[in-house]
Amino acid sequence: MKNKQNERKVRLAGMGKALAGRQVCFDDQIRYRLAPGETLLDLAQRAAEEALEHADMKISDMDCIVCAMATPLQGIPCNAALIHERMAKGLNIPAMDINTTCTSFLSALDTMSYLLAAGRYERVLILSGDTASAALNPGQKESYELFSDAAAAAVLTCSQADEPSAILYGCQRTWSEGAHDTEIRGGAGLLPALALTEDNREDYYFDMKGIKILRLCARILPDFVEECLKEADVRREDIRLTIPHQASKALGVIMSRLDFEKGTYIDRVQQYGNMVSASIPYALCEAIEEGRIHRDDLVLLMGTAAGLTVNFLLLRY
Amino acid sequence: MKNKQNERKVRLAGMGKALAGRQVCFDDQIRYRLAPGETLLDLAQRAAEEALEHADMKISDMDCIVCAMATPLQGIPCNAALIHERMAKGLNIPAMDINTTCTSFLSALDTMSYLLAAGRYERVLILSGDTASAALNPGQKESYELFSDAAAAAVLTCSQADEPSAILYGCQRTWSEGAHDTEIRGGAGLLPALALTEDNREDYYFDMKGIKILRLCARILPDFVEECLKEADVRREDIRLTIPHQASKALGVIMSRLDFEKGTYIDRVQQYGNMVSASIPYALCEAIEEGRIHRDDLVLLMGTAAGLTVNFLLLRY
Repeated sequence: MKNKQNERKVRLAGMGKALAGRQVCFDDQIRYRLAPGETLLDLAQRAAEEALEHADMKISDMDCIVCAMATPLQGIPCNAALIHERMAKGLNIPAMDINTTCTSFLSALDTMSYLLAAGRYERVLILSGDTASAALNPGQKESYELFSDAAAAAVLTCSQADEPSAILYGCQRTWSEGAHDTEIRGGAGLLPALALTEDNREDYYFDMKGIKILRLCARILPDFVEECLKEADVRREDIRLTIPHQASKALGVIMSRLDFEKGTYIDRVQQYGNMVSASIPYALCEAIEEGRIHRDDLVLLMGTAAGLTVNFLLLRY
Repeated sequence: MKNKQNERKVRLAGMGKALAGRQVCFDDQIRYRLAPGETLLDLAQRAAEEALEHADMKISDMDCIVCAMATPLQGIPCNAALIHERMAKGLNIPAMDINTTCTSFLSALDTMSYLLAAGRYERVLILSGDTASAALNPGQKESYELFSDAAAAAVLTCSQADEPSAILYGCQRTWSEGAHDTEIRGGAGLLPALALTEDNREDYYFDMKGIKILRLCARILPDFVEECLKEADVRREDIRLTIPHQASKALGVIMSRLDFEKGTYIDRVQQYGNMVSASIPYALCEAIEEGRIHRDDLVLLMGTAAGLTVNFLLLRY
């Protein structure tokens, strides 16, 4: 399979994030869920406005709006059109969704970097975020207590000649042996919302087979990560900070298995849980705000997603 | 807004299509709906296998699988992961969704052409198709009698030095004034499937405000198309065939308003209706099979999509 690439001279010019307004706790684990009247559109808009402010730009400066979310907001139209309505009504900026579930932000960054590098666009707004709480099953304790509702956004621009920022390497793989290990079977084409009955209600809840996913990850991730590091020609010790998807409380175990030492990567599962597509950009935004990443630093974003998809993206911030 | 571009040397190496198995008629209008036991995955797989066969390739030759569909198959994971499970289980080809509703195929072609041109991938399988029948409202005659279930697929490759094939120009715009003119409000994050009641059932059906859409299109399309033709530096008479999205029976009126003469574009609304994201690639595949398009011909794909998104893609086949 071909995966040859040159670096793309792009730059995260600004980022923003937003947490849902209602805090809930499960033992020592803190989670956030939408408050009454609040929607993901509110969170996404707040995150995007913060990203634009940090980039010192306006929405009218954007050449494209990309929603990199795991779940739809409506059956139709795409999420980006609904965000567009909130933030860009009256402007005719193109709006598009890119979806690889939990790693959608990485796929969108990686994909759009080619359009920026080729000069098609100069500034792209990428938004991630999901309403996990819309489909959590109170009967499935592991997933019910894992997720938070949140959003994060980034303004991606072309980097100038004197700026070091670039995407150096991206790689995605999908192992569909895991297609049904993380799923919401109902609500869409295969099992429409209108087919909901008292008997099939379970099919409309989020369903996660934690042990199966862990086993599949343990089998494929070590080789995948080694191969990526080699292809990207980077050593773990050269990376300033690794931001993995905050998949579950098993994050530490997985990262140790992948030979990433504690302290070299972000683990905020206790503080936020799994924020679905917002997990990685939220943690990235926070790390930038806290001064853990500076321009010219190598940053590794990586994660697993329903599919099972794995994503690896190395960038010079 | 920036939209500068050079041609991308890519080639539609093979295409395929599939119609749902149950034919229904409304007066002289023929429509296709899924037969009992049939799913969109069946249609998408048939279309993709045909595309691969025409390209003389196997699924294992693909570097990426992209679903360019308007509607999800499940709440999670993304459609491409489910197609991957059908066709590529055991291979670890990346799988991703790109969605701009009805013009998703154009957005995917346009977007992925940059990854091919940059050498990231050499061969990409793009699949479109939707189960319109999953959410049609028997109480809304206009839309109930308009849609068909279908799928279409394309193998996109890099073109060789001696091949004329290329994407010459692409442009997308979104006017979110029309975000709620074509929608399925329910089944996803903003109004979850689990919130379905007898009272809000209407919100889970496809809802189309035909007259409002036509008015918005009449206002924006003429300038949009003129601007694109000018930017693409092409005259209508140089285009061998135009394939518009088969949005509705008003297609002829719209095309006439855009100064496209009858016979220069495909109108199969009577034969198939609106096949959502499959409309354009299905008609393109059929035109190729019927010998209406040959290598080196200029072909214009264009259309409107829920959002309201408009898309224009000029290619040398």
